[in-house]
Amino acid sequence: MSPERLLALLERVRSGALDPARALEELATLPFEDLEYARVDQHRALRQGLPEVILGQGKTPEQIIGVAERLLLAGHNVLATRVEPEAAAIVCRALPALEHHAVARTLLALPHRPSPIGGAPVVVVTAGTSDLPVAEEALVTLRAAGVPSERVVDVGIAGLHRVLEAVPVLRRARAVIVVAGMEGALPSVVGGLVRAPVIAVPTSIGYGAALEGLTALFGMLTSCASGITVVNIDNGFGAAMAAIRQVHVESGLA
Amino acid sequence: MSPERLLALLERVRSGALDPARALEELATLPFEDLEYARVDQHRALRQGLPEVILGQGKTPEQIIGVAERLLLAGHNVLATRVEPEAAAIVCRALPALEHHAVARTLLALPHRPSPIGGAPVVVVTAGTSDLPVAEEALVTLRAAGVPSERVVDVGIAGLHRVLEAVPVLRRARAVIVVAGMEGALPSVVGGLVRAPVIAVPTSIGYGAALEGLTALFGMLTSCASGITVVNIDNGFGAAMAAIRQVHVESGLA
Amino acid sequence: MSPERLLALLERVRSGALDPARALEELATLPFEDLEYARVDQHRALRQGLPEVILGQGKTPEQIIGVAERLLLAGHNVLATRVEPEAAAIVCRALPALEHHAVARTLLALPHRPSPIGGAPVVVVTAGTSDLPVAEEALVTLRAAGVPSERVVDVGIAGLHRVLEAVPVLRRARAVIVVAGMEGALPSVVGGLVRAPVIAVPTSIGYGAALEGLTALFGMLTSCASGITVVNIDNGFGAAMAAIRQVHVESGLA
Amino acid sequence: MSPERLLALLERVRSGALDPARALEELATLPFEDLEYARVDQHRALRQGLPEVILGQGKTPEQIIGVAERLLLAGHNVLATRVEPEAAAIVCRALPALEHHAVARTLLALPHRPSPIGGAPVVVVTAGTSDLPVAEEALVTLRAAGVPSERVVDVGIAGLHRVLEAVPVLRRARAVIVVAGMEGALPSVVGGLVRAPVIAVPTSIGYGAALEGLTALFGMLTSCASGITVVNIDNGFGAAMAAIRQVHVESGLA
Amino acid sequence: MSPERLLALLERVRSGALDPARALEELATLPFEDLEYARVDQHRALRQGLPEVILGQGKTPEQIIGVAERLLLAGHNVLATRVEPEAAAIVCRALPALEHHAVARTLLALPHRPSPIGGAPVVVVTAGTSDLPVAEEALVTLRAAGVPSERVVDVGIAGLHRVLEAVPVLRRARAVIVVAGMEGALPSVVGGLVRAPVIAVPTSIGYGAALEGLTALFGMLTSCASGITVVNIDNGFGAAMAAIRQVHVESGLA
Amino acid sequence: MSPERLLALLERVRSGALDPARALEELATLPFEDLEYARVDQHRALRQGLPEVILGQGKTPEQIIGVAERLLLAGHNVLATRVEPEAAAIVCRALPALEHHAVARTLLALPHRPSPIGGAPVVVVTAGTSDLPVAEEALVTLRAAGVPSERVVDVGIAGLHRVLEAVPVLRRARAVIVVAGMEGALPSVVGGLVRAPVIAVPTSIGYGAALEGLTALFGMLTSCASGITVVNIDNGFGAAMAAIRQVHVESGLA
Amino acid sequence: MSPERLLALLERVRSGALDPARALEELATLPFEDLEYARVDQHRALRQGLPEVILGQGKTPEQIIGVAERLLLAGHNVLATRVEPEAAAIVCRALPALEHHAVARTLLALPHRPSPIGGAPVVVVTAGTSDLPVAEEALVTLRAAGVPSERVVDVGIAGLHRVLEAVPVLRRARAVIVVAGMEGALPSVVGGLVRAPVIAVPTSIGYGAALEGLTALFGMLTSCASGITVVNIDNGFGAAMAAIRQVHVESGLA
Amino acid sequence: MSPERLLALLERVRSGALDPARALEELATLPFEDLEYARVDQHRALRQGLPEVILGQGKTPEQIIGVAERLLLAGHNVLATRVEPEAAAIVCRALPALEHHAVARTLLALPHRPSPIGGAPVVVVTAGTSDLPVAEEALVTLRAAGVPSERVVDVGIAGLHRVLEAVPVLRRARAVIVVAGMEGALPSVVGGLVRAPVIAVPTSIGYGAALEGLTALFGMLTSCASGITVVNIDNGFGAAMAAIRQVHVESGLA
Repeated sequence: MSPERLLALLERVRSGALDPARALEELATLPFEDLEYARVDQHRALRQGLPEVILGQGKTPEQIIGVAERLLLAGHNVLATRVEPEAAAIVCRALPALEHHAVARTLLALPHRPSPIGGAPVVVVTAGTSDLPVAEEALVTLRAAGVPSERVVDVGIAGLHRVLEAVPVLRRARAVIVVAGMEGALPSVVGGLVRAPVIAVPTSIGYGAALEGLTALFGMLTSCASGITVVNIDNGFGAAMAAIRQVHVESGLA
Repeated sequence: MSPERLLALLERVRSGALDPARALEELATLPFEDLEYARVDQHRALRQGLPEVILGQGKTPEQIIGVAERLLLAGHNVLATRVEPEAAAIVCRALPALEHHAVARTLLALPHRPSPIGGAPVVVVTAGTSDLPVAEEALVTLRAAGVPSERVVDVGIAGLHRVLEAVPVLRRARAVIVVAGMEGALPSVVGGLVRAPVIAVPTSIGYGAALEGLTALFGMLTSCASGITVVNIDNGFGAAMAAIRQVHVESGLA
Repeated sequence: MSPERLLALLERVRSGALDPARALEELATLPFEDLEYARVDQHRALRQGLPEVILGQGKTPEQIIGVAERLLLAGHNVLATRVEPEAAAIVCRALPALEHHAVARTLLALPHRPSPIGGAPVVVVTAGTSDLPVAEEALVTLRAAGVPSERVVDVGIAGLHRVLEAVPVLRRARAVIVVAGMEGALPSVVGGLVRAPVIAVPTSIGYGAALEGLTALFGMLTSCASGITVVNIDNGFGAAMAAIRQVHVESGLA
Repeated sequence: MSPERLLALLERVRSGALDPARALEELATLPFEDLEYARVDQHRALRQGLPEVILGQGKTPEQIIGVAERLLLAGHNVLATRVEPEAAAIVCRALPALEHHAVARTLLALPHRPSPIGGAPVVVVTAGTSDLPVAEEALVTLRAAGVPSERVVDVGIAGLHRVLEAVPVLRRARAVIVVAGMEGALPSVVGGLVRAPVIAVPTSIGYGAALEGLTALFGMLTSCASGITVVNIDNGFGAAMAAIRQVHVESGLA
Repeated sequence: MSPERLLALLERVRSGALDPARALEELATLPFEDLEYARVDQHRALRQGLPEVILGQGKTPEQIIGVAERLLLAGHNVLATRVEPEAAAIVCRALPALEHHAVARTLLALPHRPSPIGGAPVVVVTAGTSDLPVAEEALVTLRAAGVPSERVVDVGIAGLHRVLEAVPVLRRARAVIVVAGMEGALPSVVGGLVRAPVIAVPTSIGYGAALEGLTALFGMLTSCASGITVVNIDNGFGAAMAAIRQVHVESGLA
Repeated sequence: MSPERLLALLERVRSGALDPARALEELATLPFEDLEYARVDQHRALRQGLPEVILGQGKTPEQIIGVAERLLLAGHNVLATRVEPEAAAIVCRALPALEHHAVARTLLALPHRPSPIGGAPVVVVTAGTSDLPVAEEALVTLRAAGVPSERVVDVGIAGLHRVLEAVPVLRRARAVIVVAGMEGALPSVVGGLVRAPVIAVPTSIGYGAALEGLTALFGMLTSCASGITVVNIDNGFGAAMAAIRQVHVESGLA
Repeated sequence: MSPERLLALLERVRSGALDPARALEELATLPFEDLEYARVDQHRALRQGLPEVILGQGKTPEQIIGVAERLLLAGHNVLATRVEPEAAAIVCRALPALEHHAVARTLLALPHRPSPIGGAPVVVVTAGTSDLPVAEEALVTLRAAGVPSERVVDVGIAGLHRVLEAVPVLRRARAVIVVAGMEGALPSVVGGLVRAPVIAVPTSIGYGAALEGLTALFGMLTSCASGITVVNIDNGFGAAMAAIRQVHVESGLA
Repeated sequence: MSPERLLALLERVRSGALDPARALEELATLPFEDLEYARVDQHRALRQGLPEVILGQGKTPEQIIGVAERLLLAGHNVLATRVEPEAAAIVCRALPALEHHAVARTLLALPHRPSPIGGAPVVVVTAGTSDLPVAEEALVTLRAAGVPSERVVDVGIAGLHRVLEAVPVLRRARAVIVVAGMEGALPSVVGGLVRAPVIAVPTSIGYGAALEGLTALFGMLTSCASGITVVNIDNGFGAAMAAIRQVHVESGLA
């Protein structure tokens, strides 16, 4: 409930148009309507660029179609993450408006192209080619929110010249998303080279002592470079969302 | 070494003022001087507010005094974190310029008061009173960098009205640092209420299944609110540094 | 062996109708018959509503049919949990009396409809739609025992207004079963809103740091809301059984 | 804010005594005041028997005295848990109203003796004598809430006759709290003997593979007896609170 | 090399029939021939009942056939464990002498029937029907060694009367192998009822907090009944081998 | 209750000397008296050599004195394990009958010297000198039960000649208790050299990847030598009790 | 960039042949060209025997073909590891120059046969036949680098005579790679027998407490033989690379 | 027993000077004397530079004095590691020949100065100042063996210029020991810069997600630079011993 609507209600009480008892009843639901209002606000923000997001993992193609169809009919932008190739094929046949990004495992439709956000790009760096799907998920999410981005791939710390070559791009960034599996050390190196926020994404790449991403995760959390933050294993979407939160604050959209 | 200095050097070679062999010697250290230059840049940034940081943990009072003295003599701001009360007393007797913050376990001296940074504050929220030392470490670090901050304490999710009371303050924030132990669920709730960046700090508060902070850490990483980032257990300093990275980008200082 | 039967036996000894030596023989098995009696008592309780339960996991369709058939022939109510779709189809063809609940993965036959138990309902709440199968297993188990229940779905803590909307239903509950994966924080929030028993069920929903449900489990055990109890990961049946234990005590059936 | 106060406010608006704009301001804080009201309700319940609880762990004697004094002055019942012997001595000297229970590590003052709750007792069972402190913490908590309780100690499953001797007491129980360390198997045995709710408390008793209580915890969660619920390691207070939730529902106090 | 053979060699040296240098050469391999001798001794023991054992896990049917064929041709008894149904079918077609035990997942051929060992049986007890494959592996191994055995199944500790019914059989045992998954508590109960050696076998039965058998394993290691020993998860063969070691010592065969 | 006593009771019922109702009352406790009888039997066995055992860990000197005094007055043999040096000094001053073994951390009094058990010894082997306290605990326990034992120390597998030197002693053993920390590999080597039962005791010796004994524990459980059983970390007492169970079966005392 | 080339450049500036501005441009890339040079150096070393390595795991056959084709066209030696049989078949059809080693799961082409390296061999030892694929991966890698090697298989520590038989071969080695699963104890035994470097490779062979190789890994790290180093689980390639690093230092190729 | 001594023995048998039966007796111990001989060989190697090593951890000062005294009297070099300051003071008072290195926590006496080994040095690199004690332990061990060494400290990967400055020293090394805690990423960077063997030592430096060194350990094992080997957490001595093994092979001393 907006202040305007509440003031109107109170005016109706004063004018006698509304009975205090009936007003009380209406007000009883106010805290939730107030939050409902927040939800509306969120919707408005969404229409400004950020699509509704469907986590494809654990959903049948039919369920994805169901949710996506409702959203598209309501005129919303739609992003589905972690959609398996078979499911993607089925969904795209049903809803041709959705664009499938195979490496990122995403489906995307942007009927309302997000108003482009100016300024420096968010740079997404990967340590190895196997980290690419996670990086692409982040890139698609950024694109869906109209946030400019750049991509630097295959910058393993065992080949320092690759890292150093990337320094100019990294230093231009508004925020750097670093995607790395195995020992997960790339964020420490990047964190020492740039002063912008560094969001580290551990990946489940590796075997044995890589512990399905836990080693990279713990390594990033104990980084010797200060001020690095971390998201869940393989969570490219979450890293992009963190960067989008920052961009929104800077753009005064928050 | 800046391009300007390098060009000057080459000119001196061309003019015969500098011997190629001596120039070679000087250039031998170039790649590192180049990075040294970056370090100088970093120093400049530091003089703008961010102090040199000493991790007190595992250092003797004598070692802390030694490092701090050298920094103070060089005119640097100094921040020491994780200093035990006994060590703090000894260090402060030797170096009265350092101010001891007992709850935050920090020592701080700001001979060059950082030029205050405008804009919205970074808000630091704690779930319980036991999380206070970690929150205070973050607040002292923010203050040392001249970043405006606010504090909201004791906002456990088992008492939702406390969280809701804090909403106005949270919505004003440029970034929210959420400090929580036990199940570590407060960041999810805050992440659903605000659109600014949320930096979650798990604490080692709790016993048994709290696993000395690992449960809070994993809980925050799997948060159902998207775009939340996490730092190491009890790492209030690191969370503040992440916020400072963001503020520096926004202030064009990066 | 019931006290009545034991007294009758002793009377037969006194009257000389039974030889002490033969009585001794019969009594030798008494401790077990006594417990057997408990089993009979249990059976009586079962006929009052609680069916015999078959854990489908790790059983072939033939084995499920074998056990279920014997129970149905003996006139018992039957509940099978964790039955895969293929197995369910085979079993239902063989035993059409069994009703298949696909989401809950259960088979149920209630030839003796349990006498309905009055009073407030047990409310089953889920944090996300992916937690539904576990919630449905709990709901089917409650129904099989004649315990009234209500369902509230998709109440994630990142959208507080959903939680708050559910408060009236939650406050009516005799007990609340809260099903949640990922960070598993919903029970803490619910535990702060209601004073009835809260039984938390962690689910294996999530990836990476969710550790296949361990993060939710540990989070629930360290809940900042006091008096919350927890069952095994994905154990919707166990949570319902805990609620049924409570209802039986309250109904004087224990 | 109670409905009565809200109605009064609206009447004042209707009568013109209150300006809509000023009313709006007052109403802005309404959702939280509404929840504040819930807190008042909780306080009322507390006055009916349940004391305010102070977690002594990690607090200085001075801090415990500070909080307890304020509560006692306000006329509240007070329970402090996990108070070390030295701290307890200091606190009791300062506040003689507090009664120290050395084994339970609690301090208790009940200026408002809770109105006794009728019906069957909550029975607290321990596997070994080392589990006693946890059991006593549960018993003190139950006593503080006016809930009748009984205690059965040293009922290890390696001496089955001890368990069987306890059956009559266990079968009388409204709920059974089972406290056990090491392999944590006693709840399974008790769960097979009684039909009342069984709340299992793992303890950190044991060494090596006992993993400081995790083995008992996991053992209880995978119990082969259905409907057993578990609380955190060593959390006697939490188990009692779970039983109190149940008793409150049964007594219509919830 | 036996002492007899060594003495003969030395006599040949003394008599001049063997050159010291040639003798030296022969003696150079003595430590290994001595151990080879031990192997021969072991072979003799094997011919007395214990077959050669092939771990089927990770072997192709062809590899199993290859090894088994060579052993059978050499006249050895053969036991293959952990043979999948498909592999077993292929192997049995090639080597009809092998008898397939489907539940135990074993193949067995005893051309030299082991001389039956007298005395009390080794009793194998299982907590649940799902533990049966592990128990049957133990039973087949015992049978292959000529060790008398008995089987008691489905003796869960949540149904104490089942355990108590089994007491007479258990008390007759020379050793008791207790196979249990989930919380793994049965060995503690059995250990309190019998004074013979108790060998506990944790199984990977269960889900969630059962941690694929680790919970049962740790529970058994921290058993409150003293003198219980444990083997690896699902290792029915190893438990039987431990019992066979004991029987061999008692029978003077070691 | 013995069969004799039960028959007498029934005769009294037949003769009219006992009322069926009173008999019923008496019989109600029969299952437990029956097990009580087992306990008496156990006591008899204990008087034959095995002392009552007090776990010193976590007990005050006063508590140890209390329990030991009552046992000594009742004429029982007494063994206390894990008694810290300070506690041992206090206890021995109060009860001079107790003999303190500093390395084994035990207190022992044998007023009834156990009748010596003939046959081969139980051999206790340690991998390093740091494993000695655990080995000595096993040796004292064996001595208290009258079981002959031998000790072989410092037989690390990195020095194979030490192992091989010990072979004659190991081959004489009725059972071998192998105590080892770090990688815990000695039991595998011993298990390949002897055919008697091998009971492995992991110790908490080592650092880092030794994981306080878990590495040795897991190593022993996955031993490539078959038929090795394992007890809890540092549990020398438990290993001895396992050997005593075997000896009792062999000696017909079980 | 070598000092020689740099000096030449400076001479060209002095002589006026090179403009300072153009020289600056060239020098701007110096740090990277310097490292690029290192890469060229690496290439030279590679042409001396070490092939370019493709990690087959997680790559499609098409991707492997793509990379291998480019390398072969450029005249490089090629080694692909962890190639599944199906993928290997497809790749070999497309690129017949590649030789498939089924057990090692490798593809290898050596158009430039590495110049053979003299001296003692690197010996690769395996504890069991299941460890063979990992050992073969190491052997293929050594062969690809021209390093002489020997293989000793199936040397379990439970059969010491097998280990002792291998001593002469082991003592001849320049380095020993020891491949072992389960308890991973073989490196300790070998480390006590030889004084050359011992590189231990844990394998994921085993079940239950073998924890997919972690137990072997931790066992090797806590080896009681000093100076043993360890690589990741199943990492035969990495162990060979460590030996190649040593051989290169010794051969002056580094 | 050397071949010479064995031949002499056989000659004495042939000549009749030795009775075959007495010869048999003597030969019975041959396999062990043979290995004893290996031990003598090992001793000889030790006298060439490598001292006898005493692990101080878990030993009383008296025990250290006892062992060291015996070794010094026998003329051996002595190295004691992990000696606490208090113990070191006591030991040095008793045995002034021992030199105490406080940071390395070692005691060292080299009556036989090891003959210096020529060639390139072993370089020991540390990531942070807190890793110094582990590095110094390695350096003292190298010095005790006469192996030339160099030290590069405080080369964190978050400050790449520090790493790059160290490149010339690193490239000169015969082997590099890299000591690092926290995320343990330095070995990957070093491994990409040098081609000599890299031995990584994880340290227990760090808190929270550093997991007392496990994170660094796992990070090093999954290094993206190939051919890196790892020793146990904080095991500076072990890393040095691995380098010494390599040096001995290269020097033909093995």
